[in-house]
Amino acid sequence: MYYTKVFEKIYNEISQIPNNGIVCDYIPELGNVNPNKFGVHLITVDRQEHSFGDSEERFSIQSIAKVLSLTLAYNLENENLWRRVGVEPSGTPFNSLVQLESDNGIPRNPLINAGAIVICDVLLSHIKNPKEELLHFIHKVADNPTIVYSPKIAESEKLAGFRNRALVNLMKSYGNIHNDIDKVMDFYFHLCSIEMNCRELARTFLYLATDLIDPETNQKFVTTSKAKRLNAIMQLCGFYDEAGEFSFRVGLPGKSGVGGGIVALHPGKYSIAVWSPRLNKKGNSFLGIEFLERFTTEIETSIF
Amino acid sequence: MYYTKVFEKIYNEISQIPNNGIVCDYIPELGNVNPNKFGVHLITVDRQEHSFGDSEERFSIQSIAKVLSLTLAYNLENENLWRRVGVEPSGTPFNSLVQLESDNGIPRNPLINAGAIVICDVLLSHIKNPKEELLHFIHKVADNPTIVYSPKIAESEKLAGFRNRALVNLMKSYGNIHNDIDKVMDFYFHLCSIEMNCRELARTFLYLATDLIDPETNQKFVTTSKAKRLNAIMQLCGFYDEAGEFSFRVGLPGKSGVGGGIVALHPGKYSIAVWSPRLNKKGNSFLGIEFLERFTTEIETSIF
Amino acid sequence: MYYTKVFEKIYNEISQIPNNGIVCDYIPELGNVNPNKFGVHLITVDRQEHSFGDSEERFSIQSIAKVLSLTLAYNLENENLWRRVGVEPSGTPFNSLVQLESDNGIPRNPLINAGAIVICDVLLSHIKNPKEELLHFIHKVADNPTIVYSPKIAESEKLAGFRNRALVNLMKSYGNIHNDIDKVMDFYFHLCSIEMNCRELARTFLYLATDLIDPETNQKFVTTSKAKRLNAIMQLCGFYDEAGEFSFRVGLPGKSGVGGGIVALHPGKYSIAVWSPRLNKKGNSFLGIEFLERFTTEIETSIF
Amino acid sequence: MYYTKVFEKIYNEISQIPNNGIVCDYIPELGNVNPNKFGVHLITVDRQEHSFGDSEERFSIQSIAKVLSLTLAYNLENENLWRRVGVEPSGTPFNSLVQLESDNGIPRNPLINAGAIVICDVLLSHIKNPKEELLHFIHKVADNPTIVYSPKIAESEKLAGFRNRALVNLMKSYGNIHNDIDKVMDFYFHLCSIEMNCRELARTFLYLATDLIDPETNQKFVTTSKAKRLNAIMQLCGFYDEAGEFSFRVGLPGKSGVGGGIVALHPGKYSIAVWSPRLNKKGNSFLGIEFLERFTTEIETSIF
Repeated sequence: MYYTKVFEKIYNEISQIPNNGIVCDYIPELGNVNPNKFGVHLITVDRQEHSFGDSEERFSIQSIAKVLSLTLAYNLENENLWRRVGVEPSGTPFNSLVQLESDNGIPRNPLINAGAIVICDVLLSHIKNPKEELLHFIHKVADNPTIVYSPKIAESEKLAGFRNRALVNLMKSYGNIHNDIDKVMDFYFHLCSIEMNCRELARTFLYLATDLIDPETNQKFVTTSKAKRLNAIMQLCGFYDEAGEFSFRVGLPGKSGVGGGIVALHPGKYSIAVWSPRLNKKGNSFLGIEFLERFTTEIETSIF
Repeated sequence: MYYTKVFEKIYNEISQIPNNGIVCDYIPELGNVNPNKFGVHLITVDRQEHSFGDSEERFSIQSIAKVLSLTLAYNLENENLWRRVGVEPSGTPFNSLVQLESDNGIPRNPLINAGAIVICDVLLSHIKNPKEELLHFIHKVADNPTIVYSPKIAESEKLAGFRNRALVNLMKSYGNIHNDIDKVMDFYFHLCSIEMNCRELARTFLYLATDLIDPETNQKFVTTSKAKRLNAIMQLCGFYDEAGEFSFRVGLPGKSGVGGGIVALHPGKYSIAVWSPRLNKKGNSFLGIEFLERFTTEIETSIF
Repeated sequence: MYYTKVFEKIYNEISQIPNNGIVCDYIPELGNVNPNKFGVHLITVDRQEHSFGDSEERFSIQSIAKVLSLTLAYNLENENLWRRVGVEPSGTPFNSLVQLESDNGIPRNPLINAGAIVICDVLLSHIKNPKEELLHFIHKVADNPTIVYSPKIAESEKLAGFRNRALVNLMKSYGNIHNDIDKVMDFYFHLCSIEMNCRELARTFLYLATDLIDPETNQKFVTTSKAKRLNAIMQLCGFYDEAGEFSFRVGLPGKSGVGGGIVALHPGKYSIAVWSPRLNKKGNSFLGIEFLERFTTEIETSIF
Repeated sequence: MYYTKVFEKIYNEISQIPNNGIVCDYIPELGNVNPNKFGVHLITVDRQEHSFGDSEERFSIQSIAKVLSLTLAYNLENENLWRRVGVEPSGTPFNSLVQLESDNGIPRNPLINAGAIVICDVLLSHIKNPKEELLHFIHKVADNPTIVYSPKIAESEKLAGFRNRALVNLMKSYGNIHNDIDKVMDFYFHLCSIEMNCRELARTFLYLATDLIDPETNQKFVTTSKAKRLNAIMQLCGFYDEAGEFSFRVGLPGKSGVGGGIVALHPGKYSIAVWSPRLNKKGNSFLGIEFLERFTTEIETSIF
């Protein structure tokens, strides 16, 4: 109950702030969303749940899904994965080509577009039907078999994806893409099309805040060491060239998407998802960051 | 007692690893150090202390001191400070000029050289004798009045400091240096010349792991919010273009110096300092990082 | 007769120079050439012709053809053309993406790959069958109906062209490609596949050294003003990041191809083509530049 | 007489064009000039002279003087000079540091600021009193002992020269400055302070359009080969990142200065100087380029 009150109080504060953020509209499906939507959901490691606002309405989680495909690839490749992609913050926008050229086709980290495309390529080398397998993994980790790709968004991404096709071709020219480009991009565009609501999103990422057991294998979804490392990557690279700002203000590892969603984790404590479609200039949810900053300040905990 | 055993065990492991690291020798005073020195010291928030190796021998802490001058400037300027310097990882080496040119003279963060020089300039605008004041602050926070600058190292830095002079002139051309360049650089070169041993270094940084009271003011040295933010900056920017690697492997906020020292913090738990002079290609202590990675793995705790 | 003697004398000199140049082999058709081939042909504006060596053997003129497609596009668009592509030397390698990103998809000049791709796109917007039309234009300007594309080389280029596909996708994302990418690239890869011998190459470019009349229109192939401007572009951009070196040493406008060919012009005097397959590190014919430097020094004329 | 008429006609045309150019004012001495001044002077290789407008009023030739110090250094070092500085267009603004960092302290060419500073350093290594010697050389080559440095401008440059000091310190850190930085910069700031009128400027550069004999040595001021190479450098690098545009529009080698002066050469024919203080966005005289473009079009000659 306490958390819900805090949510409401903070929401009332931040809804007073002039919000010049702009809804992402490079594909029509994102642009059509009501810009004033706001939802938040927190789930603690002992499964207490707290909601506020439009927390039951699904939205396009976009790049947030990159952490899920990364988890799958990391489990398959272990530390060999880092031969194909780095773990450093890029200091550049999410779709930059500059560093790729100076770094011989090795993306700085798996959460910028180029890195997430390499991860798709890695999964294609291991798995026959990666789209189905990824969804199956998400269903298990989220304990929710209703999560699906949006075919309309995947198709729109495909039509608008020239920049991402530039990235994949450039990496292919350096030998860092092993599979057919069209298959890699089809998988990538589907990855970006997953939809969840705040409750589902917070629950999906709980495996990075606490040990969760895969019912099929009776083992943890990720080892403690891997969870630590995935959190470290989110902390340093989850917000592109605003990663420092997010760490500085919020103090938690997290990941944003251009659909206006953010998920953040306090390892050992909780997973929280917030959604507000208007984006700041760096492409991250304006109110989402405001909310999380005030929340971690209010409850006086962060990982630092 | 337990920790000391762990230290010894890890040291025995890592001393078997071939170490191609090179002692930094751009100034003779650094190059003369015995490359095989190794020391570590941990102090918990309840003041238990654990040592191993050459933990009582002083070395040049170099860039680690940049966190101390930053703390002083942050307390004076509060959030206005970030008009002069950013909080983002740079993705480039510590002495790069490239970004400074594209960012109009605003350094990406206060822990790369350019940023630390701006912090010196900020302190010069507030304080009449910044060298003395900074030392006084360190004496208080470290509870140790014996810490001093090394005049020999400060002088050597000055003679070798062309790259840093390029940085300060470039920032001055953008209006981001307000004081006389020679005074700024004299302060900066002194800042880089501070010497401590591992015990002193771990103790000095304890104020970022727990609340410590300034005996002169009866207030915390830094507020909880500022401590969180300083730790976030260290986490994202403390190891230059190896910040991701350090976070990924060690999982703690920390700061390195080219003298081979590293300090790292587990907020709420402990402060740890390690020293080994041989540096990897990114300019960070090779064995220092190896040690800390195994240490946080062994005791199975990190902030993530 | 005199020139042929000079050719022989210079050839004897430069064939003594150790040549570490490497034959371009990113596609097998280029790599199979005999690396010791050497040919030169000069044609004066009053149609005296002078040959030496393998001047009758055809080779892949590769990027040299970019001047021909540029000429066609310039005649169609006039000065509007420069809204789509610049006229500045790039200071970077021929296939760099860096500047394209900072310049919003506008290539620095029409002779780097990105610029030549835009020119192909421009021609596609004007002409129904650009491959046929370009060849027809070349037949007229060269007074030689036997010049053809090499389907094998065009196909090989297509299979190896990931980098160029990165360029075209990046430019499309900025709106600077108006036609279907596959059609643009098919035309571009054909453009790069034209084969000529030195005699044919020198004769083909004579229209930039003197006024030649198009028999179909009874007008000059290019106006005096356009010829001047095309020569200026070759002078500044014809050798990628070695343009300064070529101007400095040879003092003539020219264009090179990775097949080892170079064409150079002394406006009002002559057109000269040289071929030697071994390339220097910048991708230009090692002996070709050596030869032309000594030639313009020997006959003591250059445009400067 | 003919040329003067052409000058007048063109001036009447271009004075109708809206001129949004801005007088350079980073130092007050440059900002105080009357922005509507306009002068031109042409001298042919057989010493016919043609003037128009304010051709007898002296102005600060600024960077144009860099060709003169380069000539002196080239005569002293011959081809060894190019170990210290390149001959390639930079593709970047005149005072950029970016390339210097990626090129290990070797400036791309001797006409950008960094390159001209290296040339000053080279002269300091050879000559005891380089300021006097350079002026003596100019007096001889210009056949005019009245040309002097402006102490006021040199002093102003010094006070404003932080960017240039960044360049010299950066190059020093790479070992590409051999003398004391203050001496190098004093010489450099004086070099930038030379004043001439259009008549003097055109006459001074005549040695690059035709053979002139040094009365002290009875030899040419520069060999034919060196004159060709100096012209090539001006052609490719004389207008910074507008070099292509100038070549494209004017078709002559030339050099501009932020005082609004431009000198251009038609080797074997003439030297022309034009002055108009309003600069375009690239820092070159707006009307100066307009004038020269129309002039070479009108008389239908260029080097191409």
